[in-house]
Amino acid sequence: MKRRTRPIGASPIAISAPQNAHPTTITTYIYDGASYDAVNGLEQGTPGHFRWIDVCGFKDDALIADLARKLGLSDLSIADLFHLDQRAHTDVDGDLVQTILKMPVDRQPFVADQITLVLGLNFVLTLREQPRDCFDAVRKRLASGKGQIRSSSAYLFYAICDAVIDSYFPVLEGQGDLIEALEERILRDPGDGAMRDIHLLKRDLLVLRHAIWPMREALAALQRDDTPQIDEPLLPYLRDCSDHAFQLLDMVEVFRETAQGLVDLQLSSLSNRMNEVMKVLTMIATLFIPMTFIAGLYGMNFDRASPYNLPELGWRFGYLYAVGLMIASATTMLIIFWRLGWIFGRSKTNRRITGSETEKPHN
Amino acid sequence: MKRRTRPIGASPIAISAPQNAHPTTITTYIYDGASYDAVNGLEQGTPGHFRWIDVCGFKDDALIADLARKLGLSDLSIADLFHLDQRAHTDVDGDLVQTILKMPVDRQPFVADQITLVLGLNFVLTLREQPRDCFDAVRKRLASGKGQIRSSSAYLFYAICDAVIDSYFPVLEGQGDLIEALEERILRDPGDGAMRDIHLLKRDLLVLRHAIWPMREALAALQRDDTPQIDEPLLPYLRDCSDHAFQLLDMVEVFRETAQGLVDLQLSSLSNRMNEVMKVLTMIATLFIPMTFIAGLYGMNFDRASPYNLPELGWRFGYLYAVGLMIASATTMLIIFWRLGWIFGRSKTNRRITGSETEKPHN
Amino acid sequence: MKRRTRPIGASPIAISAPQNAHPTTITTYIYDGASYDAVNGLEQGTPGHFRWIDVCGFKDDALIADLARKLGLSDLSIADLFHLDQRAHTDVDGDLVQTILKMPVDRQPFVADQITLVLGLNFVLTLREQPRDCFDAVRKRLASGKGQIRSSSAYLFYAICDAVIDSYFPVLEGQGDLIEALEERILRDPGDGAMRDIHLLKRDLLVLRHAIWPMREALAALQRDDTPQIDEPLLPYLRDCSDHAFQLLDMVEVFRETAQGLVDLQLSSLSNRMNEVMKVLTMIATLFIPMTFIAGLYGMNFDRASPYNLPELGWRFGYLYAVGLMIASATTMLIIFWRLGWIFGRSKTNRRITGSETEKPHN
Amino acid sequence: MKRRTRPIGASPIAISAPQNAHPTTITTYIYDGASYDAVNGLEQGTPGHFRWIDVCGFKDDALIADLARKLGLSDLSIADLFHLDQRAHTDVDGDLVQTILKMPVDRQPFVADQITLVLGLNFVLTLREQPRDCFDAVRKRLASGKGQIRSSSAYLFYAICDAVIDSYFPVLEGQGDLIEALEERILRDPGDGAMRDIHLLKRDLLVLRHAIWPMREALAALQRDDTPQIDEPLLPYLRDCSDHAFQLLDMVEVFRETAQGLVDLQLSSLSNRMNEVMKVLTMIATLFIPMTFIAGLYGMNFDRASPYNLPELGWRFGYLYAVGLMIASATTMLIIFWRLGWIFGRSKTNRRITGSETEKPHN
Amino acid sequence: MKRRTRPIGASPIAISAPQNAHPTTITTYIYDGASYDAVNGLEQGTPGHFRWIDVCGFKDDALIADLARKLGLSDLSIADLFHLDQRAHTDVDGDLVQTILKMPVDRQPFVADQITLVLGLNFVLTLREQPRDCFDAVRKRLASGKGQIRSSSAYLFYAICDAVIDSYFPVLEGQGDLIEALEERILRDPGDGAMRDIHLLKRDLLVLRHAIWPMREALAALQRDDTPQIDEPLLPYLRDCSDHAFQLLDMVEVFRETAQGLVDLQLSSLSNRMNEVMKVLTMIATLFIPMTFIAGLYGMNFDRASPYNLPELGWRFGYLYAVGLMIASATTMLIIFWRLGWIFGRSKTNRRITGSETEKPHN
Repeated sequence: MKRRTRPIGASPIAISAPQNAHPTTITTYIYDGASYDAVNGLEQGTPGHFRWIDVCGFKDDALIADLARKLGLSDLSIADLFHLDQRAHTDVDGDLVQTILKMPVDRQPFVADQITLVLGLNFVLTLREQPRDCFDAVRKRLASGKGQIRSSSAYLFYAICDAVIDSYFPVLEGQGDLIEALEERILRDPGDGAMRDIHLLKRDLLVLRHAIWPMREALAALQRDDTPQIDEPLLPYLRDCSDHAFQLLDMVEVFRETAQGLVDLQLSSLSNRMNEVMKVLTMIATLFIPMTFIAGLYGMNFDRASPYNLPELGWRFGYLYAVGLMIASATTMLIIFWRLGWIFGRSKTNRRITGSETEKPHN
Repeated sequence: MKRRTRPIGASPIAISAPQNAHPTTITTYIYDGASYDAVNGLEQGTPGHFRWIDVCGFKDDALIADLARKLGLSDLSIADLFHLDQRAHTDVDGDLVQTILKMPVDRQPFVADQITLVLGLNFVLTLREQPRDCFDAVRKRLASGKGQIRSSSAYLFYAICDAVIDSYFPVLEGQGDLIEALEERILRDPGDGAMRDIHLLKRDLLVLRHAIWPMREALAALQRDDTPQIDEPLLPYLRDCSDHAFQLLDMVEVFRETAQGLVDLQLSSLSNRMNEVMKVLTMIATLFIPMTFIAGLYGMNFDRASPYNLPELGWRFGYLYAVGLMIASATTMLIIFWRLGWIFGRSKTNRRITGSETEKPHN
Repeated sequence: MKRRTRPIGASPIAISAPQNAHPTTITTYIYDGASYDAVNGLEQGTPGHFRWIDVCGFKDDALIADLARKLGLSDLSIADLFHLDQRAHTDVDGDLVQTILKMPVDRQPFVADQITLVLGLNFVLTLREQPRDCFDAVRKRLASGKGQIRSSSAYLFYAICDAVIDSYFPVLEGQGDLIEALEERILRDPGDGAMRDIHLLKRDLLVLRHAIWPMREALAALQRDDTPQIDEPLLPYLRDCSDHAFQLLDMVEVFRETAQGLVDLQLSSLSNRMNEVMKVLTMIATLFIPMTFIAGLYGMNFDRASPYNLPELGWRFGYLYAVGLMIASATTMLIIFWRLGWIFGRSKTNRRITGSETEKPHN
Repeated sequence: MKRRTRPIGASPIAISAPQNAHPTTITTYIYDGASYDAVNGLEQGTPGHFRWIDVCGFKDDALIADLARKLGLSDLSIADLFHLDQRAHTDVDGDLVQTILKMPVDRQPFVADQITLVLGLNFVLTLREQPRDCFDAVRKRLASGKGQIRSSSAYLFYAICDAVIDSYFPVLEGQGDLIEALEERILRDPGDGAMRDIHLLKRDLLVLRHAIWPMREALAALQRDDTPQIDEPLLPYLRDCSDHAFQLLDMVEVFRETAQGLVDLQLSSLSNRMNEVMKVLTMIATLFIPMTFIAGLYGMNFDRASPYNLPELGWRFGYLYAVGLMIASATTMLIIFWRLGWIFGRSKTNRRITGSETEKPHN
Repeated sequence: MKRRTRPIGASPIAISAPQNAHPTTITTYIYDGASYDAVNGLEQGTPGHFRWIDVCGFKDDALIADLARKLGLSDLSIADLFHLDQRAHTDVDGDLVQTILKMPVDRQPFVADQITLVLGLNFVLTLREQPRDCFDAVRKRLASGKGQIRSSSAYLFYAICDAVIDSYFPVLEGQGDLIEALEERILRDPGDGAMRDIHLLKRDLLVLRHAIWPMREALAALQRDDTPQIDEPLLPYLRDCSDHAFQLLDMVEVFRETAQGLVDLQLSSLSNRMNEVMKVLTMIATLFIPMTFIAGLYGMNFDRASPYNLPELGWRFGYLYAVGLMIASATTMLIIFWRLGWIFGRSKTNRRITGSETEKPHN
């Protein structure tokens, strides 16, 4: 969660640029069905052409505000461009559709960057803070001109949304791998800081869920009747994109519940391991304490002059008798341990605990 | 969760065949009320006949795309055929109804294969990756011609959906058996890796839930007004099929909560067993430590010249006195243990812990 | 959860009688406002009379299917009669209303039997597998003719539904008693297999919830406009019946949460008891280990020729000095235990732990 | 949860008075804007006057049924008056509005009594079993005649509902106090039966939630269009009353989650305390076991004739050497404990554990 | 949760001022597009001007009630002003809109003060108990006259609501910092009262959620059609404000789940630490107990006259043999510990447990 930079009670249309923002770079892609050009800096469009104005970095706030004002955004929308801690949502502002999405930047820990898309009659404006993006394939398709990508600004708008949604799949696949690695690690060695990693994993999944969930609503808003900017033929494509968001949420839910299951696995493994430790202690103590007692008994110094005092010490086979007593005591204990299932026949448990092998549980 | 093969930002109508796909085999079933024929390979239909085109394996993507295009699918729908990681859903695409379901392939761990059904005016197209399917009974009914199965392509479409849904029942019954086996195992021996199996069971149930839940919606979409391809008389059959999906979800919920209950049972059993281990250690230590102390006391080497040093050693019955002290100490301890309920009268607990018997809890 | 007997992909109208079904017995109750007769076997109705056809046991499937066909049920509805693993629901099939409910047969473990009610213009058909039912009071009211029970077939249909719903109250009261018994048992002796009984209790409550929840919907469906078979004046009665189902669900929810609370109580009690066991061990060990060390110290055999070796052994009051050391050590330990609150002043705790008394927590 | 007294399958209009009911007492309050009179027993109203008929105790069921019939209640509504285990709800029965609420009678454990309110054109009927009620302030306002309370029977109806809802606030404040007391107690001494009290608290809160939740719906039903008995100007008052019910539910939810947090606090405290106990044992054992071993070593009786046997025993400073070894061993152990943070520098922990002080966690 | 001061059953329009209320101070801000004046005390407005009447402290209840009555509030609304324990909500009362919000006053523990806003045609009335508020920036904007703040009373009303909502962001950022501090602390030292702080944190987050959740509804109510007092152009601003409330709820949910995760982390850390303590005890005991036994064995006093009694004592290298036995026993144990992974090669675990370093889990 980023810190807000807006002061409490400030004017809603005051522009507060984020601190330490990246330098502003603008790239304009001018295209129509036949032509395509990518220009650094802002370029005026010619009638009949579409423009994709891709802005990265919020340092030059005056430039960005000026650009947005020329494109027709309202004051409130312009101020909103600079608030990088918003939930994903779609606003319709006259002829313009403004959609805010979250784009993954780092995987572990998961960090997302906010991307604002504005769809106008013949332009798409994208704003983001981080230079890294997931639009390389979109740019290639735009340059190659294959498919419908140059057919309208709305299609490009869709293509960018689609790329943002799809870029979550590798993030979630990474989380899935992490879960499997954690499972193995807990079964091998539950104490090894696993709970901390489960905790961080759960936090990442939580942040992912809160990033994806409102994007689902933002995409649904695009498919409603009140966005005439989105043509009818584009709707199946947007539905497809919504389906992907649903699928991501499904994956997140599965991962979240699995991660919660890892907590139980970890607590159980710790408890199990403690049981094993205690069994070792109990067995050693229980074996040797009676034997040590017998040794202590015949180490007493009672006056041998009395025939009632420690007569065993004078026996010819007294030592063997004492050792025999000790062996009998130890044997009794071992038999009890064996009947309690603590030794022998439990080798399976020990093998798993020491983690030297893994096995298939279901067959 | 399968890995996606689509690159981020790729064209939505680009066909990306799954890697390591099975070789494509096509079987065409041509039938009407009176005749029936099953042909390997794709067969053109004759007017008045219905066709079931059953495609298995995605290796020959060009062939499949060509077939789909001939049957009238849109480019987006064709590209969707090759995405094997979709949620179950129903799309209406002009005259065609496209339903994606998940068909169980393996039980433990649960693995599902995606099956795409396309219903046209006089054909049903089914696509799946795995050669194993659950349609043998449907094929037999089609061959025998009994009932309404040859009456329309919509009825066959329903019959296939119904077979897919019904094939989850044995899977869930298997999970139910596994839960009962786990219950017994935890009560017999909580440490024996049971938590790992609970974890895997819970993951399977979670995957099952996420497989069945969207199928319920896909079936509901078929019953809505916007699918004129589904005739009115077919609706009660589809409702019956939806009811089965609901019933499956009920079973999954019951199993999921029961599996979560197994976690508590396991943690409690581990804790209980630890209590038993600690009681054994405490009893042995508490019995012998005072006795060993007494033995040590009379093993001291104080100078017997002084009459105040260890006079007991010179007593005629000193040894008996010392042994008597030890017996008194042990008896005191045993009485305390008995009053705490740790020994005798608690045999029930011990019996259960060693797992030699099971009993009916409710009567 | 019963096992399904239907093969996957079978025709939806194929009749598959349950295995090991009870022999079929049919009782026909013929009544109108003035007359009443109960006849074994199926009896044809006379105009102006109502019939209650009560079928028990599914062995003679042909007879039942034939009877249902004569009463006007569709093929799909007839096949449904034989599926004993359905969720409760209401179907309207032309002039007929078909409601499936679950009737409690056994309390602990809870077992329900499926009862199918079909309401026609002048008949009610009930089908169930188990001979035990909860309709004795309904039969008595029908025989006595008091109230409105002979006024219409719809009223009888309601009276049977009401009896089914009301028969859950004693089941739930039994579960409530069980919860109270478990609470007392856990506080008295947490190790005594209580967790297993909690687990079974939770499973029963889960099954109860999944039995009652869809019945609520089945009853709500009867009150909707699309069941003209149910007259307006009957609606308050059905609402009353729905209220009872709501009340049952409330009770189940309260019991389920209380049962979940028992899990915490059990884990805490086990942990508490372990604490007590460990305190006993720690106190005994900590008391005697230093004393045993002192005894061992003066049991060493250093050469007394050197005046630096064990001079205490030659002291006149050496023994008393050693015993004094031991007493001082033990006293120090006892004071520490007392200040930690482990002994004395904690008698309340000990009393509760040994479970010899119970007390009122709230006043 | 009270036990039902109704037999299964009984007629819905049969009156079954509760067992051991209190004797029936009736008070009639006759009032209009100018006059007010309270009469024991049932009094006939005069035109232009309003009546509040307050019935307490269900023993004389015939009298109550007769009274209700005279006031125009239907047979089903009359039978419902005697069912004291209903959920709160509102029924509109012709000209009459019948609302069932739950009135708190005891706080810990929480016990509620059912109160049935019937609003007619110029009367309000209230029925309850327990003599204790929360209407003293309402009676005083009625007697004093201040405000609108004598303006209509609907206003009095509202005033009684409002008093019932408001009487939950002191109950919940009591629960809040109990939670705070439990928090302190757990931090001071987690073993002292606290989990049992948490369990009882959670049960009370659960019962409270199930008492208040349906009352919210009963109040909402009163504000709907289908109750013309409630005049438009009364709606803001009823909304205010609904707001209070919402607020109560909010409080219950906060308390329920806090109580659930107490479970974690308790388990953690128990675990923490066990850690402390184990540390004491481990430190004592680890300090003295090596020392005792050294003492035992030099207590062996090997034949001193051989110069290789126990030469230390003959050393001039052998004893000092042995004691030095012991001191070195103990010092090593103490240093290890100190570096593990078990002794010194952890005094804070010990202070909290013994519970002698509390501190502010947040500042 | 504050205590209610209203007696049960009191008249809904009776004014009950809170006890120990702050002295009442009134500030009137009179402004229009061109002029601005802030006056202590209540000031009559002049036509064409707007007024913000800011009341703080409820001591002088008569003055407040009189002021409210002059502004046109109904009796019920006036009585409501004095109830400081309400849920946030919006009421429309004729020409007036009355919104109750909760304003944060203290961060840890979180304390909120109730603020009542009344919007009239040309005035805004704000009432609160605590002198501290979050309106400094609003006052500055009003004084400077920049933006639309002086354009209408509705805009000022919005600006105050927005300031209240925004003042939760620093509170939540403080909670986020606390969570991170707690995470580090638990990993460093789980026993150090961390669970208590988690408990208090969870309670604060719960109170925050219950403060923010109804404010979301109160803001939504302002955007509905039935508040003509709010002009159409203001709606985007209110939507923006609602979005902030949603964002706050998202943050609270993330924090709540993270705090719940801390509970698992804490329990696991405690269990882990216990494991370490037990391992130390077990290793020490297991190393020395067999050695002490051997020492005890050769400390027995059997009569050496018999050649069968303790012949080892007479061996030339008996002592070395005994010491050799002890070394062999200790070595065996150390090898076993090493193979169980308890010593060496586990230094990572020990490092984390003693908390001397932190590490990045994900990379």
